[in-house]
Amino acid sequence: MALWHGAMNNRGFRQGSFCSFQSSTSDEDLMDIPGTAMDFSMRDDVPPLDRELEEDRSYNGAGIGSGNRMMDFLEEPIPGVGTYDDFNTIDWVREKSRDRDRHREITNKSKESTWALIHSVSDAFSGWLLMLLIGLLSGSLAGVIDISAHWMTDLKEGICTGGFWFNHEHCCWNSDHVTFEDRDKCPEWNSWSQLIISTNEGAFAYIVNYFMYVLWALLFAFLAVSLVKVFAPYACGSGIPEIKTILSGFIIRGYLGKWTLIIKTITLVLAVSSGLSLGKEGPLVHVACCCGNILCHCFNKYRKNEAKRREVLSAAAAAGVSVAFGAPIGGVLFSLEEVSYYFPLKTLWRSFFAALVAAFTLRSINPFGNSRLVLFYVEFHTPWHLFELVPFILLGIFGGLWGALFIRTNIAWCRKRKTTQLGKYPVVEVLIMTAITAILAFPNEYTRMSTSELISELFNDCGLLDSSKLCDYENHFNTSKGSELPDRPAGLGVYSAMWQLVFVVIGGVTRMTVSLVVIMFELTGGLEYIVPLMAAAMTSKWVADALGREGIYDAHIRLNGYPFLEAKEEFAHKTLAMDVMKPRRNDPLLTVLTQDSMTVEDVETIISETTYSGFPVVVSRESQRLVGFVLRRDLIISIENARKRQDGIVSTSIIYFTEHSPPMPPYTPPTLKLRNILDLSPFTVTDLTPMEIVVDIFRKLGLRQCLVTHNGRLLGIITKKDVLKHIAQMANQDPDSILFN
Amino acid sequence: MALWHGAMNNRGFRQGSFCSFQSSTSDEDLMDIPGTAMDFSMRDDVPPLDRELEEDRSYNGAGIGSGNRMMDFLEEPIPGVGTYDDFNTIDWVREKSRDRDRHREITNKSKESTWALIHSVSDAFSGWLLMLLIGLLSGSLAGVIDISAHWMTDLKEGICTGGFWFNHEHCCWNSDHVTFEDRDKCPEWNSWSQLIISTNEGAFAYIVNYFMYVLWALLFAFLAVSLVKVFAPYACGSGIPEIKTILSGFIIRGYLGKWTLIIKTITLVLAVSSGLSLGKEGPLVHVACCCGNILCHCFNKYRKNEAKRREVLSAAAAAGVSVAFGAPIGGVLFSLEEVSYYFPLKTLWRSFFAALVAAFTLRSINPFGNSRLVLFYVEFHTPWHLFELVPFILLGIFGGLWGALFIRTNIAWCRKRKTTQLGKYPVVEVLIMTAITAILAFPNEYTRMSTSELISELFNDCGLLDSSKLCDYENHFNTSKGSELPDRPAGLGVYSAMWQLVFVVIGGVTRMTVSLVVIMFELTGGLEYIVPLMAAAMTSKWVADALGREGIYDAHIRLNGYPFLEAKEEFAHKTLAMDVMKPRRNDPLLTVLTQDSMTVEDVETIISETTYSGFPVVVSRESQRLVGFVLRRDLIISIENARKRQDGIVSTSIIYFTEHSPPMPPYTPPTLKLRNILDLSPFTVTDLTPMEIVVDIFRKLGLRQCLVTHNGRLLGIITKKDVLKHIAQMANQDPDSILFN
Repeated sequence: MALWHGAMNNRGFRQGSFCSFQSSTSDEDLMDIPGTAMDFSMRDDVPPLDRELEEDRSYNGAGIGSGNRMMDFLEEPIPGVGTYDDFNTIDWVREKSRDRDRHREITNKSKESTWALIHSVSDAFSGWLLMLLIGLLSGSLAGVIDISAHWMTDLKEGICTGGFWFNHEHCCWNSDHVTFEDRDKCPEWNSWSQLIISTNEGAFAYIVNYFMYVLWALLFAFLAVSLVKVFAPYACGSGIPEIKTILSGFIIRGYLGKWTLIIKTITLVLAVSSGLSLGKEGPLVHVACCCGNILCHCFNKYRKNEAKRREVLSAAAAAGVSVAFGAPIGGVLFSLEEVSYYFPLKTLWRSFFAALVAAFTLRSINPFGNSRLVLFYVEFHTPWHLFELVPFILLGIFGGLWGALFIRTNIAWCRKRKTTQLGKYPVVEVLIMTAITAILAFPNEYTRMSTSELISELFNDCGLLDSSKLCDYENHFNTSKGSELPDRPAGLGVYSAMWQLVFVVIGGVTRMTVSLVVIMFELTGGLEYIVPLMAAAMTSKWVADALGREGIYDAHIRLNGYPFLEAKEEFAHKTLAMDVMKPRRNDPLLTVLTQDSMTVEDVETIISETTYSGFPVVVSRESQRLVGFVLRRDLIISIENARKRQDGIVSTSIIYFTEHSPPMPPYTPPTLKLRNILDLSPFTVTDLTPMEIVVDIFRKLGLRQCLVTHNGRLLGIITKKDVLKHIAQMANQDPDSILFN
Repeated sequence: MALWHGAMNNRGFRQGSFCSFQSSTSDEDLMDIPGTAMDFSMRDDVPPLDRELEEDRSYNGAGIGSGNRMMDFLEEPIPGVGTYDDFNTIDWVREKSRDRDRHREITNKSKESTWALIHSVSDAFSGWLLMLLIGLLSGSLAGVIDISAHWMTDLKEGICTGGFWFNHEHCCWNSDHVTFEDRDKCPEWNSWSQLIISTNEGAFAYIVNYFMYVLWALLFAFLAVSLVKVFAPYACGSGIPEIKTILSGFIIRGYLGKWTLIIKTITLVLAVSSGLSLGKEGPLVHVACCCGNILCHCFNKYRKNEAKRREVLSAAAAAGVSVAFGAPIGGVLFSLEEVSYYFPLKTLWRSFFAALVAAFTLRSINPFGNSRLVLFYVEFHTPWHLFELVPFILLGIFGGLWGALFIRTNIAWCRKRKTTQLGKYPVVEVLIMTAITAILAFPNEYTRMSTSELISELFNDCGLLDSSKLCDYENHFNTSKGSELPDRPAGLGVYSAMWQLVFVVIGGVTRMTVSLVVIMFELTGGLEYIVPLMAAAMTSKWVADALGREGIYDAHIRLNGYPFLEAKEEFAHKTLAMDVMKPRRNDPLLTVLTQDSMTVEDVETIISETTYSGFPVVVSRESQRLVGFVLRRDLIISIENARKRQDGIVSTSIIYFTEHSPPMPPYTPPTLKLRNILDLSPFTVTDLTPMEIVVDIFRKLGLRQCLVTHNGRLLGIITKKDVLKHIAQMANQDPDSILFN
């Protein structure tokens, strides 16, 4: 019973007041109640007789309480114990254990009173409530972003005199002077040349419009980059590599905070409007994850547990993708395939729910004015023919090549930025890019429109009244085939048009995963065309895989040295645990603590002389038999706390990690019992375990470290960082590129 | 180096000739080349001097080869080592290691010659080729099943005189005497009453038709049940609980064999035609998995590796569901959520591919005559309104209740069948059920048609020409609302109709998972209606969860006592590894082998006196420090093999699990080195590890057993069966209900 209690404390002690472990059933615990009074009896000024009595009790059966008393004393949550430093890796096993303890306690209590029952039920539903809130918030934000970005994109071309807050389309909707064929020309909408030089004709007007277009783009870009630089550096970039790393169990404080959310939302609008951004799935995932993280603070269950919070963030990522494309199922699959690390089935359901609510909220806001859930709904309904697979497969090959090229160029550019002077002038870089984009984009009708408009245009079935050039193309194509409208090879014209446009769009498309492309296409309603789409996606995947397995996000993670353990790639080398563990062959011996022979001073010396984040505890130096593992942070906090609060703890006090401390001779300082911060079930592997299995264990269980034994004796330790360094080394990369712990 | 080599052998030695591990780089191995000659030098007739020299060599550095020689001798694959007995659980870690070794070897060899390179490339693509074959085969079988079942269902009502092989629909297609409004009435199609009493009118004709309908149904049912009973008992039942168990790592030989495939295909046709089966996803998954398993035999990579084969079977299950509903993506999600256990990302892609090929093959066979991928394509395109959510949520609540009730009734019935006399007369039971179904089904037009026709009828948008009664209902409904066709609340009429039909269909629907319902509905093209559908599915899930978490398949697994470790449910109890491990507190000590002091006879005694499937190997009985783990099966095979083939191995030979054997006094029998069958990296946990973590490790790593240590000393063992029994015990179930190992 005592052993058991100890172990449960070990797993459960770090919880806050909400879920602190209170046992009141065992005999030992009943003995503890007058414990606080007994603390004083251990001071030096207590008469020898009492002391001896005390020692006897403490060593015999009845005295277990004495040891336990100190455990109880420490069980009051010491602030900081069980939390993590910034830029550190969480221990999934510990976090999940804590949550299970919490859940158990609530379930057990629920039988006691109605209030506790209500608490239990509300606790069970808080996850769904949180999902609802995340869906609502991220859907609303996505709606706001879409509407603002649409308005600001049009602002680059002109302004509505009927109300400056109307975008081009809405401006002309409200107009009476518009014909059906020329829907987007109305007197209320004034291009900048009309406003400035009162005409829209001639070369000078074109130049004015061109100039204004570039000017606005530069202004938006400048605003965006300045906001990020000044207020929230974390709002920079797509965010997905960092979110992947966070979801895998890394702590980056503030990365998903409220400032990041606000600045990211504003700058996303600015960046999209400036014409720079091609894919908004990354930023929207970041925005949704910020929403998720902030909303987590309203729920104890999620605020206090890093593992539970990551479940929520996985779902939030799904909601983000869902609103980016209006594709809830695609969003969930994207989160599952690309972003998430720990994804239990429960999260699958919740992600669906969050993604759905978000998409539904966005639809209610109705930014595209068509009351459809999906941004670009496809209206093809004619069957396809087998020969049409050929252009799809060609498209797939091309897409795969382009994607691999894109990733390489992008990474090379980012590396250059990291290593040369270039990285010092981000504002200048962005402005130059914006200027180039705007100057190149303006003359071409398709590059000038926003990506969503463009894709929508690409996918729409052309009616006979449609004025778009793409449709002209297809109609022309059809005419040459004999003008049989019902039998026309739907989309083939569009594919050919797409072929021409490939240089404009695919850069954007290949940044998403191939799977996402499938899901996105499928969700646009092209269910009939799933076979050709899959064929294209498959070819594209094969081609891209042959050229390099790494996706863009993984490449960025590696470039930045984030401690991310890739779950997809198999570790294919023949090394053993002993080749990776510390200490290396000629290093000094592993730093260990002994369970019952070290003084507070010894331990403090070890702490100050090393930088390890944890220490194995062994039976004795000679036997090297493993007892448990103690974290540096917990050790420091507990010793400091004991020195401050527990009378008589001095440098010569012996630290006990055992269950019972032996009787001490009189006049020796009181002992410090630290079994409650000891992890009594550290993971171990033997020195001959192949690294492929070790990597698998680290991945699947989410370990932070693992101890290495040989024939039952402790030999060394492998941390997640060691594993990552080893993988980098095996892949002929610089092992020191892995940052953080 | 030697250690390393040993460990690799340990993981790699069990491969067949295709992938046997050949090392020829280390010094020790070079010394082995004349090894066969040295075998004889160890016989008793060798002069003492030579023997001593031999011993010296064998104990000093240079002599490592001697030990190794015997390892090499054993490295020739001993038939049976590394395989599994029927009704046993596989070791996922070992299987995956073997596959990685195999892959490594092929990759390394590929640099040596062009032929090896071709082999390597073909090996890499064999997975995709296998998926293609599975897709083609299961798609074709599904097509054949659909066509045959359609024909035989119609056979119950009548026969085509234009050709008996035509079904009702095809019969009338070929007729010239048919009007558009009465498509299904033509002179070529004769009901049984027309054939027998030459009229279709009047009560007597009705009775004749009724009688023939029931007769045919009984004949089909009798044929089906007899075929299963006589030829392939494994073809019985839906098969999904067993497939889930197999995919989790259990061996049931013949369950996915060719006889099962043939009989299952025939009986599925018969059962569907007899009117009994409502959902064919289970049988089709079984059929597809049989295809997968049989096709695995064509590829070394999959034939020889149980883990790899299970990846293929997961994909085959997806293909099965894909053809059951014409929903490839739904199939993959079903396989992921409901059936599979080990589902790496690579399998996700391959499953998509297999599911797609299968669906495409089915579409090419075109059993529904509409050249659509999807069986019941929905043509609604009008938006829905918020108030329409209400009936959906009601439907969800009802569905959840009905589902829970269905599962309970079904399980109660099955338990009754298992425990009472009822189970002894399966043929009678099936005939009675068929008779009741047929007698009740005939008078109602909707219950008489097959499920697929019914669902298709339910979901089709009603054209003005449609003659179905359901459409009458909806048209009536619309008329009462004002007959505005473009604005009619699409589907609401259908929902109401569905409401009436709920008692007929939902029984069928709730047997599938809620997720499947969503995916299926969604794939029918009702993308616009995803929000109401999700609302219904969510409500249904919540209601069903509140009444009992177990799905129908899990309930059946539990009922049958299959050794399936559920990955979805959290283990919520506070027990520790020491509470579960064997030996229990008052049991005799754990049976262990020592690494260097047991004779062949000692080990054989232990083997004959115990039934454990494996034994831990320790340094010595006193220290109890763990060295490794050896499987009973491997031990028996190796000792038998050594006695037969290795000269001088007698009962008093000492078995060494160490790397080097010490010098032996003269005239002692030669030693038997068995380090190569020793698992040098057994998984260990401490006795104080909470069971929730142990369960997690078993689930995530797919372990078969795990050793328990305390302060570095071996204390006990936990097998998968112990874990399952403990879970059953904690859930207040009979722990002895868990069968097999």
